[in-house]
Amino acid sequence: MKAKIIITPKKAVLDPQGKTVQNALEHMGYSGIQGVHVGKYIEIDLAPGSDPETARQALEDASHRFLSNPIIEDFRLEIAD
Amino acid sequence: MKAKIIITPKKAVLDPQGKTVQNALEHMGYSGIQGVHVGKYIEIDLAPGSDPETARQALEDASHRFLSNPIIEDFRLEIAD
Repeated sequence: MKAKIIITPKKAVLDPQGKTVQNALEHMGYSGIQGVHVGKYIEIDLAPGSDPETARQALEDASHRFLSNPIIEDFRLEIAD
Repeated sequence: MKAKIIITPKKAVLDPQGKTVQNALEHMGYSGIQGVHVGKYIEIDLAPGSDPETARQALEDASHRFLSNPIIEDFRLEIAD
């Protein structure tokens, strides 16, 4: 079982990394790009047979407490088989 | 239209960030974690009406050329409405 956590800067927060990627793409001739957001991706391998609900709660708690910075970042958690 | 690029270290490459997160989770009492991989997440807003196939090709090229390091990283590209 796998858990995936995607952490992105909140829309209102400056995202210099995203801006840099957007500029780079434009300079290299890729057009039609309206915005780029750069975040973190964390993939967690869970022991087989773990209870998805317990895992979700534990990881939501961990994401909120120390994997993301809730002041400037949003996170999204998915649990998949 | 949005494109999402997920860049992860190849399995054979040391992932010290992942190892650190795994240790932190264990020390904080979260059990049943067998492995953690930390990567990058890039979300790209594409102009409405862009051709998905053209966008896919351009972004695959960009991912290969400069968004990821193909020697030590894998990338996964998804185009969604």
